[in-house]
Amino acid sequence: MRIRRKLYEIIFEADSPKGKAFDIALLLIILASIILVMLESVPDINLKYGHTLHILEWAITLIFSIEYIMRVAVVQRPWRYVFSFYGIIDLLSVLPTYLSLVLVGSHSLMVIRAIRLLRVFRILKLSRYTQAGNTLGKALWTSREKIFVFLFFVINLVIIVGTLMYLIEGPEHGFRSIPSSIYWAIVTMTTVGYGDISPETPAGQLMASFVMIVGYAIIAVPTGIVTSEMIRGSRNNNTQVCSHCLHDQHDNDAVYCKKCGSRLNEDH
Amino acid sequence: MRIRRKLYEIIFEADSPKGKAFDIALLLIILASIILVMLESVPDINLKYGHTLHILEWAITLIFSIEYIMRVAVVQRPWRYVFSFYGIIDLLSVLPTYLSLVLVGSHSLMVIRAIRLLRVFRILKLSRYTQAGNTLGKALWTSREKIFVFLFFVINLVIIVGTLMYLIEGPEHGFRSIPSSIYWAIVTMTTVGYGDISPETPAGQLMASFVMIVGYAIIAVPTGIVTSEMIRGSRNNNTQVCSHCLHDQHDNDAVYCKKCGSRLNEDH
Amino acid sequence: MRIRRKLYEIIFEADSPKGKAFDIALLLIILASIILVMLESVPDINLKYGHTLHILEWAITLIFSIEYIMRVAVVQRPWRYVFSFYGIIDLLSVLPTYLSLVLVGSHSLMVIRAIRLLRVFRILKLSRYTQAGNTLGKALWTSREKIFVFLFFVINLVIIVGTLMYLIEGPEHGFRSIPSSIYWAIVTMTTVGYGDISPETPAGQLMASFVMIVGYAIIAVPTGIVTSEMIRGSRNNNTQVCSHCLHDQHDNDAVYCKKCGSRLNEDH
Amino acid sequence: MRIRRKLYEIIFEADSPKGKAFDIALLLIILASIILVMLESVPDINLKYGHTLHILEWAITLIFSIEYIMRVAVVQRPWRYVFSFYGIIDLLSVLPTYLSLVLVGSHSLMVIRAIRLLRVFRILKLSRYTQAGNTLGKALWTSREKIFVFLFFVINLVIIVGTLMYLIEGPEHGFRSIPSSIYWAIVTMTTVGYGDISPETPAGQLMASFVMIVGYAIIAVPTGIVTSEMIRGSRNNNTQVCSHCLHDQHDNDAVYCKKCGSRLNEDH
Repeated sequence: MRIRRKLYEIIFEADSPKGKAFDIALLLIILASIILVMLESVPDINLKYGHTLHILEWAITLIFSIEYIMRVAVVQRPWRYVFSFYGIIDLLSVLPTYLSLVLVGSHSLMVIRAIRLLRVFRILKLSRYTQAGNTLGKALWTSREKIFVFLFFVINLVIIVGTLMYLIEGPEHGFRSIPSSIYWAIVTMTTVGYGDISPETPAGQLMASFVMIVGYAIIAVPTGIVTSEMIRGSRNNNTQVCSHCLHDQHDNDAVYCKKCGSRLNEDH
Repeated sequence: MRIRRKLYEIIFEADSPKGKAFDIALLLIILASIILVMLESVPDINLKYGHTLHILEWAITLIFSIEYIMRVAVVQRPWRYVFSFYGIIDLLSVLPTYLSLVLVGSHSLMVIRAIRLLRVFRILKLSRYTQAGNTLGKALWTSREKIFVFLFFVINLVIIVGTLMYLIEGPEHGFRSIPSSIYWAIVTMTTVGYGDISPETPAGQLMASFVMIVGYAIIAVPTGIVTSEMIRGSRNNNTQVCSHCLHDQHDNDAVYCKKCGSRLNEDH
Repeated sequence: MRIRRKLYEIIFEADSPKGKAFDIALLLIILASIILVMLESVPDINLKYGHTLHILEWAITLIFSIEYIMRVAVVQRPWRYVFSFYGIIDLLSVLPTYLSLVLVGSHSLMVIRAIRLLRVFRILKLSRYTQAGNTLGKALWTSREKIFVFLFFVINLVIIVGTLMYLIEGPEHGFRSIPSSIYWAIVTMTTVGYGDISPETPAGQLMASFVMIVGYAIIAVPTGIVTSEMIRGSRNNNTQVCSHCLHDQHDNDAVYCKKCGSRLNEDH
Repeated sequence: MRIRRKLYEIIFEADSPKGKAFDIALLLIILASIILVMLESVPDINLKYGHTLHILEWAITLIFSIEYIMRVAVVQRPWRYVFSFYGIIDLLSVLPTYLSLVLVGSHSLMVIRAIRLLRVFRILKLSRYTQAGNTLGKALWTSREKIFVFLFFVINLVIIVGTLMYLIEGPEHGFRSIPSSIYWAIVTMTTVGYGDISPETPAGQLMASFVMIVGYAIIAVPTGIVTSEMIRGSRNNNTQVCSHCLHDQHDNDAVYCKKCGSRLNEDH
């Protein structure tokens, strides 16, 4: 039982020297396995070193499988870990290699291991990065309705513009169908602009110019949404709590509670 | 008369279970009809299933026609509905299919039905999304003069840059005419960059570099305009002044002055 | 002498009905002349209607020449007008056509007439647009040092990245010389991405990926600069002047002058 | 010894007329040498004037070498200068030409001299530009954790999206390997969009559309981060509190409390 406790500390915590060493080793193996998949997909390298890479891939998958089993074994509530975010990612990181025995090519999916690198924040000063992540997430979450309305508007615009361009340019200029015209509209509106499809008639170029200027202008909208949320979020970081009515959202320059009028006691 | 009242509730309101069911059914049919038009424009699919899709399109158009007539029939003031935003969109969604009997190809215009999807916000918690939309719209509306001045500046710049590039590069490098050079200037300034036209002479590339850096810099302007409007909009618009210490920047939910603790007197 | 006074009102002012009509007519002729130059540059149109367009161009130029002479004639201080911003633009709008008698092709430069359209703001409610323009200009001017530092950094980065790419990819992959590699770096950093030159070696693609992510990130910098200036600018719009020490930059919530302590008298 | 003192003033300071002249001359030579390297890389020019450019390059390198030796000679603490930022850049600006005797082509690296242009800020009003640079740097530094979290998220997304596109499109549509698919994902996400690789299958175009819209939206995140930091930085960092009414948001130039008119007591 003491061994289990010890293993738990090494595997799940990053405070002790051994736990930290375990986490760093794990990160290095994850990185190695991602580079492995990438190299394997390069034709020249696969031709030359394919066999070696294949063996290494299985070796790493075995290490991860053992690690996964150990995590389940040493944790207090195994099911809770299995269905936690990290538990699911850990399992998904192992599956593709086994799956490749049945389904050829599916082993590439093991790049999902990249998400396991999230553990890097545990070794670094966790709390500050988590807080930074939370601030970003909160700003996005608070503005979800505005983002939803904005996306709805963009999707509608893209559908209508795509259809109009299909009618204006037509299949003979590369706008083969409405879906591919909508694809063009998205490529243009987001200012990506591959150039694989581009308008050739004067009317089409006029329409495209309009779409571009609109796209250029409305990029300001999501930026405005997120920025104003972030500024709002960074303003109210006051942690004072009124000792009388327990209200806790005070401005930084508050001296009295705005809800009940009693003096806030930070000065004590 | 009671049937009319009942139908009104089902068709125009989304609070009752039946009304909600009606709205959800409507949204699904709208989505289906948009996907229909898209599929029909894909050559392979049209060749195979063209006939079936054609029948389905007419079926949906008939449904929408009946729905439109019913809306006009059950509403208290028909003309007001007919000339309302939704009334016009509802009519425009039906017309293209009938128009296609006379004008070949015009039925694609029925993607305007996408706008009918706006009704989705009625099923969701309407008010919050409407408010989000209003905040966005208000921010854009308040900054309309700045946006107008900005657009004027951009259009001028694009005309002058386009003409200069026409003189520098000329028709032999793809800059066939001033309008198409202006099209190039817009493609470049908005950072879309198709690459269908691109400068080839050193002088043209220098000019293009200048345009790109300017375009890169001035994207900051619309963003700045919209963001500062949004922040101003989201700030407190409370006009209460504390009668005791004259502090006047209170939050909207303040009951007591946060500076001196005396009661704010709006409730009087 | 009274005729001169009258003509001055018509030509230079936009308040009286006649003055307004004059300005609107002028704007329409300017627009027509710009469209004229554009049409003339389109090969097909030039072939067909070249002669007509040529005559129209000279007609408009004559009108503008007469207008320019009249402006000089009726204004109180002719030289001041000639060397004012509008005076120079008015002259430059006329010159290219005459210049084309000597220098073939130079008549395209008359698109500079587009700047004359600035007069449109005189017909619209002038002051509000001027103010909007001033706010934008002031925000850019206040942040000129930050923008200069930023541009210096970008230009340095682009020179170094361009040279490195020239060494990595070399002339055999389209990076023909250092200047054209710097051109590529600008195309990439500003996210324009024509694709006329693009890296082909793995090392070049890695370098390009790095440049793109940096370019993607640093677009935040000019946006941040301009936005924060605009917010600062939109905050201090207080027009109170201290009657005692004449200090005039007070915050909106100021009750006493922060410079001399005497009460501000807006409440009187 | 007095000569050394004098030389120090001329070389290291920019206040005296001689020092200023020295700095301006230096800047012009640096600019000339950068233009030199660029010209040398252009095949046509190199063929014609290669020999002259080669001699000029060595001449400038000799001037810089002498300048470097003089800097080391006249400064009080030579080692401190040698290992300072400017000292290292000064040395690196000279090395590539000598290195080119051993390693062909390496002389292009002397564009690193561009960094020496930083000295331009010493001639201009140094402090204001340094401050502008500091403000920018501080805003980026304060938000380093958020930027790190953001970059981590982007890199993960790009790896997973790249792999999925490799599986969807495959080598037959230009997505030759996972690394080059990741390169495509970066090109798309950052809205650069060369078009050298672009999706051709419907599934790939759908995936690409999703990536573009996400890329379009998340550009708002770094902008939001930097902008909110800049605004926070530009806000008043004055910590004075009025001893009479306890108001604590005074401008930096305030002498009297703007709320109650009593004198602020920092001067005591």
